[in-house]
Amino acid sequence: MKKKGALVSYRPDIKVVDCTVRDGGLVNNFLFTDEFVKDLYNTNIKSGIDYMEFGYKASREQFDVDKFGKWKFCNDDDIIDIVGDNDTDLKISVMADVGRTDFRNDIVDKANSPIDMIRVATYINTIPAALEIVEYCNKKGYETSINIMAVSKSNDMDLDDSLELIGKSCVDDIYIVDSYGSLYPEQMRRLAEKYLDCGEKYNKTIGIHAHNNQQLAFANTIETLTMGVSYLDSTVSSLGRGAGNCPTELLLGFLKNPKYDIVPILSFIEKHIVKLREEGLIWGYDIPYLLTGRLNQHPRDAIQFTHDKRIDYKNFYRFLYDKEI
Amino acid sequence: MKKKGALVSYRPDIKVVDCTVRDGGLVNNFLFTDEFVKDLYNTNIKSGIDYMEFGYKASREQFDVDKFGKWKFCNDDDIIDIVGDNDTDLKISVMADVGRTDFRNDIVDKANSPIDMIRVATYINTIPAALEIVEYCNKKGYETSINIMAVSKSNDMDLDDSLELIGKSCVDDIYIVDSYGSLYPEQMRRLAEKYLDCGEKYNKTIGIHAHNNQQLAFANTIETLTMGVSYLDSTVSSLGRGAGNCPTELLLGFLKNPKYDIVPILSFIEKHIVKLREEGLIWGYDIPYLLTGRLNQHPRDAIQFTHDKRIDYKNFYRFLYDKEI
Repeated sequence: MKKKGALVSYRPDIKVVDCTVRDGGLVNNFLFTDEFVKDLYNTNIKSGIDYMEFGYKASREQFDVDKFGKWKFCNDDDIIDIVGDNDTDLKISVMADVGRTDFRNDIVDKANSPIDMIRVATYINTIPAALEIVEYCNKKGYETSINIMAVSKSNDMDLDDSLELIGKSCVDDIYIVDSYGSLYPEQMRRLAEKYLDCGEKYNKTIGIHAHNNQQLAFANTIETLTMGVSYLDSTVSSLGRGAGNCPTELLLGFLKNPKYDIVPILSFIEKHIVKLREEGLIWGYDIPYLLTGRLNQHPRDAIQFTHDKRIDYKNFYRFLYDKEI
Repeated sequence: MKKKGALVSYRPDIKVVDCTVRDGGLVNNFLFTDEFVKDLYNTNIKSGIDYMEFGYKASREQFDVDKFGKWKFCNDDDIIDIVGDNDTDLKISVMADVGRTDFRNDIVDKANSPIDMIRVATYINTIPAALEIVEYCNKKGYETSINIMAVSKSNDMDLDDSLELIGKSCVDDIYIVDSYGSLYPEQMRRLAEKYLDCGEKYNKTIGIHAHNNQQLAFANTIETLTMGVSYLDSTVSSLGRGAGNCPTELLLGFLKNPKYDIVPILSFIEKHIVKLREEGLIWGYDIPYLLTGRLNQHPRDAIQFTHDKRIDYKNFYRFLYDKEI
């Protein structure tokens, strides 16, 4: 295993990307209060977080604006309401999903936008469409990333070919995404090696976005960062779809750069996260997510099972298992 | 990193040790119903678990038998009430803490006992006392282990000397114990290498007992098993002191030996674990345990904080931090 840096030192190339509103929005249809988002923005600044992802640039033609909170669409004006002119070290990112974004209408020149980075989420079979968005955004002046989702489902040859294609593009960052939370550290390190080789060859930065179905989101994040992965996605208290993500408070506990401070995150949890749970919002590791993760399946059945307040785990496992045969 | 076996195969030397009643007993003073323990025993048999630890052989002179459930003391007759003549592949273990056990009175010849293995828990400064118990139990016919607790607090030289001392003894198994849940996979692999070197030199088996303060119990367990560690402690749904342990359901999801079956564990969770939580028993990963784990401290303050239903995490962190200075 290649290794970059030591446990007691830090690497200045590390960037923490807070995805709480974006991935957490998948839990509550982006219905966060302005106070939540504003407090999170100030918390991120105080904690030394490098990027804050506000949500999606989703198509208003495809999605009903009355059914979702505003962070599903991330109008530039809504972001400006929170960040003003954002005269801070915290950069702003949004995500655009291939096939779900009117990027030519909704993404303007960076000079006129509060956004710094556009991250494009794609499955492995839509990479040319993702590259089209990346090229558009790159020309508009944004930092860009390609996030290849559900990499646990793709084969080595397709992935190698995809990384070559992406490597030759103008994209800045390439993300390993364990959408189903099914990958073990050993597999993650193998993937990281592959992505890092591509990054070295084509001068791209590599990132990781993990899910916590098997309580491995934090472990997979720190294991791959030790190898040289430098963009690290996390969410406060794991808030994110299904089993959630790598918890920011665990990640900041690990990182040694003195600019990172866990204390503002703890205050944010006291004020906002405890309340969300009390109000009945459910996310995070639980048996149904372990089962979909273990079987390398999309978490949607586990989300439904949890929503229905079922506890017949044995039946559920049989149901998931039979789907594979 | 040395590696033993592959992700798709299995190693017959792997043994899963269920510590649910023993470590979980630290959460509820061992007040489990007989139905719980009997069902767990049958579940372990059906799931292919290798050892079930029933509790402690604690001194009845030091501890008030009216204040604890019977598994604090593990009278042989109480075990026999559950297991009968235990005509199964499941072996029975109990733990004896150095300084808290009347082993000469309470541990009889193995020929007259349902117990197969005695595990001796010790801090690094009481290893000679631990070896005295081990030698006694070895002569009585038991398999024995030494579990060096809080290894995250010991220095390399003391640990090397201790492993030499233990290596030369008659003990069968030596355990890495991350009592405070403070160790990262990178550190765990370094420790595993050290223990495995000792094991190779002196023909001892190496085990791991992890705690989940930083959501790393499962990751640390599978990372060290990949290197050759073979005795793996786990508890159903993490039930154990503070942040709990490596969850059996995650571990069985990883192991490839067809004798292991996750389904009986899922049934047990449906019937018993959901109920324990509903009745108000609290254990498992939470912010206070992350903070003691990160600071490499005993979880007792986090247990008290949780018991008091406090959520002022920022104050608590400051309190813990100031203790270190």
